[in-house]
Amino acid sequence: MHTFSRRIPSVVQAGSCRASFHTTVSRSSAKLIDGKAIGATIQAEIKVGVEKLKAEHGVVPGLAVVLVGARKDSQAYVGMKKKACKKAGFLSLETTLPEDASQEELVKVIDAYGADPKCHGILVQLPLPDHIDEEFVLDRISVEKDVDGFHTLNVGRLHKKGKTPPTSIACTPFGCVELLQRSGVEIAGKNAVVVGRSNIVGMPVARLLQDLNATVTVCHSRTADLPAMVKQADIVVAAIGRAEMIVAEWIKPGAVVIDVGINAVDDASAKKGYKLVGDVAFDQVKEVASQITPVPGGVGPMTIAMLLQNTLSRAQASVE
Amino acid sequence: MHTFSRRIPSVVQAGSCRASFHTTVSRSSAKLIDGKAIGATIQAEIKVGVEKLKAEHGVVPGLAVVLVGARKDSQAYVGMKKKACKKAGFLSLETTLPEDASQEELVKVIDAYGADPKCHGILVQLPLPDHIDEEFVLDRISVEKDVDGFHTLNVGRLHKKGKTPPTSIACTPFGCVELLQRSGVEIAGKNAVVVGRSNIVGMPVARLLQDLNATVTVCHSRTADLPAMVKQADIVVAAIGRAEMIVAEWIKPGAVVIDVGINAVDDASAKKGYKLVGDVAFDQVKEVASQITPVPGGVGPMTIAMLLQNTLSRAQASVE
Repeated sequence: MHTFSRRIPSVVQAGSCRASFHTTVSRSSAKLIDGKAIGATIQAEIKVGVEKLKAEHGVVPGLAVVLVGARKDSQAYVGMKKKACKKAGFLSLETTLPEDASQEELVKVIDAYGADPKCHGILVQLPLPDHIDEEFVLDRISVEKDVDGFHTLNVGRLHKKGKTPPTSIACTPFGCVELLQRSGVEIAGKNAVVVGRSNIVGMPVARLLQDLNATVTVCHSRTADLPAMVKQADIVVAAIGRAEMIVAEWIKPGAVVIDVGINAVDDASAKKGYKLVGDVAFDQVKEVASQITPVPGGVGPMTIAMLLQNTLSRAQASVE
Repeated sequence: MHTFSRRIPSVVQAGSCRASFHTTVSRSSAKLIDGKAIGATIQAEIKVGVEKLKAEHGVVPGLAVVLVGARKDSQAYVGMKKKACKKAGFLSLETTLPEDASQEELVKVIDAYGADPKCHGILVQLPLPDHIDEEFVLDRISVEKDVDGFHTLNVGRLHKKGKTPPTSIACTPFGCVELLQRSGVEIAGKNAVVVGRSNIVGMPVARLLQDLNATVTVCHSRTADLPAMVKQADIVVAAIGRAEMIVAEWIKPGAVVIDVGINAVDDASAKKGYKLVGDVAFDQVKEVASQITPVPGGVGPMTIAMLLQNTLSRAQASVE
């Protein structure tokens, strides 16, 4: 059973480079947490794991991606997942149903992959069309093949200390924690502030950080003084979905900043007419933080890496 | 489906009576949050609900309590639960197994109550003897009859925002939130600090407070500066199990303090040779807080009231 690793922090101490609020301290800008490079490292590790599993057990990890409808963004995500699967040496399975497919048809597809021994992970691309009950569908995926970690049993296992850990941890929060750990950020005993309380990022990342012995505060739209709360954090995880909302003066000097946001903002100079930015005003915050993820190229590439990791782990568990 | 009520706060505003740290403001000591009285009110409400259910549907709520072994404290708790059941007009069912009963025997009892239409709630008294797998046993209880809210599915449902709320919320955290709401404490937008991160109190109470729009920080043994964290709280929930650990100088003037701890400390003047105290140094903290629960007579009586509430809710759900 793979859970996220609990590495002992090594070199960089969060907050080791501090500037008092009222004095000016000359310092260089933050170290970049390069999600693209770290994601590539993880993908290379996964490839080794795949080869070992194949050599020792004749098993190739199989990931099934199920898409309902023809949303352009969903098609793009599915395309990226398929590509990453192939690169890692996985078996890539795919089913696309029309926008008006019934829930019963979708359930049939899920059940078929559930019964297929070549398939170790099932991912239903979200969002689903309105006529389909998302919760029912996600809970229909066998918990053994729930590589998104969204099954209610996996949410329960994540949020309690029990004998049985989740079979998978949701990919984006898992990726955030991997970024911190692989960047040598000390988590235990640090104050972490998570901005946003969604099921898929805010809540699970708060739980993971707490499990690593951070003191975690979850902030949200009703938080009374968000800048003051964020200012206390040694580690900030921004997952609100509001472009560049978190500015430099909210950040404690030396803090580590993980930006989960991906927001499209108008940009006449860009070929597509827009550019992607995070929830953090990167250019100014990088002057205060000790480490920071860029957008794009931070958390984004980690989500796919952790999806592959989850699928490999399920394939490994299938031969245990 | 009953979930905990979301009352609009009325009279008392948390923190409305503040004293600055450096000035002396004359103020009277905190208002007592009387769990015994509030618990009695809830039990009276439950009795009305029971009579209505009986009159309209001929259904009497049934609670089965299962005890393994002969621990004195467990026997006392079971006795209190049985007594409360009878007083509320419930059907009280009980099975006691010997300390060396096998897990299979226990599972048989649980399954029999699961199949019994007269039984709407099943409670397995914890702790179980070491040879029994607690997690397996708690997940064996049908989620429909899980009046302790400890089933992994209920934990998952509590910790995500989904279509399906938990069938029951764990009694002690549920009781803490009821105490706050029935004492007119404003929760939304307030800073809440939960000290302790257990499955049965800290984690669920943090989630409930967040669901009511508090900004919640969970502190624990690895928190770097616990006094400073607690000092920021408008609402403090103490659930650490250390006698009188939280002292007056940790408390923000005007804060509301909920003390979940029940610790036995030596007391030569007491008949039994000990007295029960909370995690909060009550005598001094009551001089700083605006409202506070005593120990005993605070959270304790609420736990049983919420157990009855959960059982009534399950009985009501059985006729829907």
